[in-house]
Amino acid sequence: MALHRILAKDVSSPIDVPRFDRAAMDGFAVIAEDTYGASTVAPVILRSAGSISMGSTPEISVKKGEAISIVTGAQMPEGANAVVMVEHTTRQRDGDIQISSGVHPGENVSRIGEDVREGALILKKGTRILPQDLGMLTYLGLNEVSAVRRLRIAVLSTGNELGDRVDSASGRIPDVNRPILTGAIRELGCEPVDLGIVADEFEQISARLKEGIQTADIVLVTAGTSVGPEDFVPKVINSLGKPGMLVHGVAMRPSMPTGLSVVDGKPIISLPGYPVSAYIAFLEFVYPLASHLLQTDRMPRPTIKVKLNRRVAGILGSRTYVRVIVSASRDGFVAEPVRTSGAGILSSLVQANGFIIIPEHTEGYEEGQLVEAELFRPWERSQTGK
Amino acid sequence: MALHRILAKDVSSPIDVPRFDRAAMDGFAVIAEDTYGASTVAPVILRSAGSISMGSTPEISVKKGEAISIVTGAQMPEGANAVVMVEHTTRQRDGDIQISSGVHPGENVSRIGEDVREGALILKKGTRILPQDLGMLTYLGLNEVSAVRRLRIAVLSTGNELGDRVDSASGRIPDVNRPILTGAIRELGCEPVDLGIVADEFEQISARLKEGIQTADIVLVTAGTSVGPEDFVPKVINSLGKPGMLVHGVAMRPSMPTGLSVVDGKPIISLPGYPVSAYIAFLEFVYPLASHLLQTDRMPRPTIKVKLNRRVAGILGSRTYVRVIVSASRDGFVAEPVRTSGAGILSSLVQANGFIIIPEHTEGYEEGQLVEAELFRPWERSQTGK
Repeated sequence: MALHRILAKDVSSPIDVPRFDRAAMDGFAVIAEDTYGASTVAPVILRSAGSISMGSTPEISVKKGEAISIVTGAQMPEGANAVVMVEHTTRQRDGDIQISSGVHPGENVSRIGEDVREGALILKKGTRILPQDLGMLTYLGLNEVSAVRRLRIAVLSTGNELGDRVDSASGRIPDVNRPILTGAIRELGCEPVDLGIVADEFEQISARLKEGIQTADIVLVTAGTSVGPEDFVPKVINSLGKPGMLVHGVAMRPSMPTGLSVVDGKPIISLPGYPVSAYIAFLEFVYPLASHLLQTDRMPRPTIKVKLNRRVAGILGSRTYVRVIVSASRDGFVAEPVRTSGAGILSSLVQANGFIIIPEHTEGYEEGQLVEAELFRPWERSQTGK
Repeated sequence: MALHRILAKDVSSPIDVPRFDRAAMDGFAVIAEDTYGASTVAPVILRSAGSISMGSTPEISVKKGEAISIVTGAQMPEGANAVVMVEHTTRQRDGDIQISSGVHPGENVSRIGEDVREGALILKKGTRILPQDLGMLTYLGLNEVSAVRRLRIAVLSTGNELGDRVDSASGRIPDVNRPILTGAIRELGCEPVDLGIVADEFEQISARLKEGIQTADIVLVTAGTSVGPEDFVPKVINSLGKPGMLVHGVAMRPSMPTGLSVVDGKPIISLPGYPVSAYIAFLEFVYPLASHLLQTDRMPRPTIKVKLNRRVAGILGSRTYVRVIVSASRDGFVAEPVRTSGAGILSSLVQANGFIIIPEHTEGYEEGQLVEAELFRPWERSQTGK
């Protein structure tokens, strides 16, 4: 299935489309010059020379003084250079065709190559194949195209506290980053490689990251990226190869402890352990990186102007991502910031349907201010109307 | 895979999240009251009573005058009600902990149920499951949820002129509507049922539509919906059951000959034969209908303010869909309407990356006017900059 794959090469048309001159209206194929001056008061009379239906190659041709009945989309007969719309014709008792309106050459005819010229560039390298492109490729008889290989993105979770399920006996909590990130990877049309969970232990992290580097195009590793005593990820990455960790910490909230590394040409992105932070860092770093490697452009998220129903504070020097619930009201769209007590609050991302991004140099937005929200779910319909 | 499936029922949390009180910072678990008044000049000294690491259930507890070393995310020991950040502590030579800043009860602690309360509504019926929702479901230990069955949407193409491939010997042209529509159906997360191609013939269309009605939730049929002599679709639909065709012709360009029918409770949408018309009618009628049947809300398409680089004419009384190429320039986004000579020009949809929709009551938009474009591909980067 080519849908949503990325073209690896430019696609040019091997043929003209339409393949032949076609009638663009139901009516009569004629020699335009025969109809010059025809009007309701001075109609022109042409001899009927048969009819052409859809899906057949005409074996008849139009000669001077003749007209051939034709339907929209049917191949024009030889000799004819225009179509008189059926509304401007009357078939006489003797079968002759009375024309009450003249046509000029080319009128009501779709010319060969009018839609696509042979050799024309149709789809550029880097295009994500959409349904209409599938139609065009079918039309051109191109049943195969070169697509870029699907990217493989590996995901490793680190943390002594993590298990694969709820375990109330121990202090373990389920690892939610792998379900979130593998889902997000699938959304991008990429293939997730699940590296599982390892404890906060140098050798284990190292072994698993090596596996990721060997099998995937991008490696993601969550948690272990702060500066605590059990945060081994930066040390492991720097031990694996050059240049190692290039960026450790980014000016955004949440997601500050994000790290960007390259090991022997393979990008490794270390994401914060908190799921909200990990997910936002994924959107901001992994999506652009994957698009870059696929040599395709990114689609913007849908945005919408919203009125804030309370003040939100930014953090000067950091780009702040505020999760909001956008709803439609009689007075337009309203955004309610989701109250959270930190990045650990996964429910903020599940309740929210959008983000408001407060730029680095802004202290915050006031109640009632009109700002732009990026939506990742449809807006809610407010109880009070719409 | 639950990703992007639609929830059939509300999901409530079977548990509190966090499952237990957790440290929200690295530091020492204490009884807040023991630290009151502590400052750099008048520190409080607490006895060390051990340490708690991640992923373990504390078997020690904090008694009056004691402190226990704890890491972020670890379960709080019994007795403690606050965490002093490690930055505000010094471990003395004898092992005692010197506290230089007091904490209040609850400070630096994530309380049980703070993120999600047991019984709280987490995800509403009709929600399309996103990556973060997979994380939440995992966190709650909900490995199964009820999703709405995937909709089956059948597609039938009609037309004597249609074949499955380019056939230059005959007048046949390949049917591009089935590739386009089955791709668009997949994009919606629905399952296409391919009913193939039939000739413009009452009995054949009737038999194939009956098959569609029996196997699919929505039936799409392209072409044969105008009022020409070979346009059997409305007659066939009305012969199949009640109420039959309800709407025949809509006030939009292209896509005017769209028909909306119901036969024995099953919706049938007849789409124009021209692929651009069929695709636009799909977006405007089939997507909303599918969302309605799935009881989910639709995502808006990304929109962007663009400056028109030439005049575009609307058709009074019809909503007009103008295909445009949006590009980023130094002065903002510019939209160039794609020149077409009709709805038959599939290349217009392949070249374009967006639509401008001219409302029914508007004559058109002027060159230089700022209007809103809906994007279906990323914008182009203009040669002249950005």
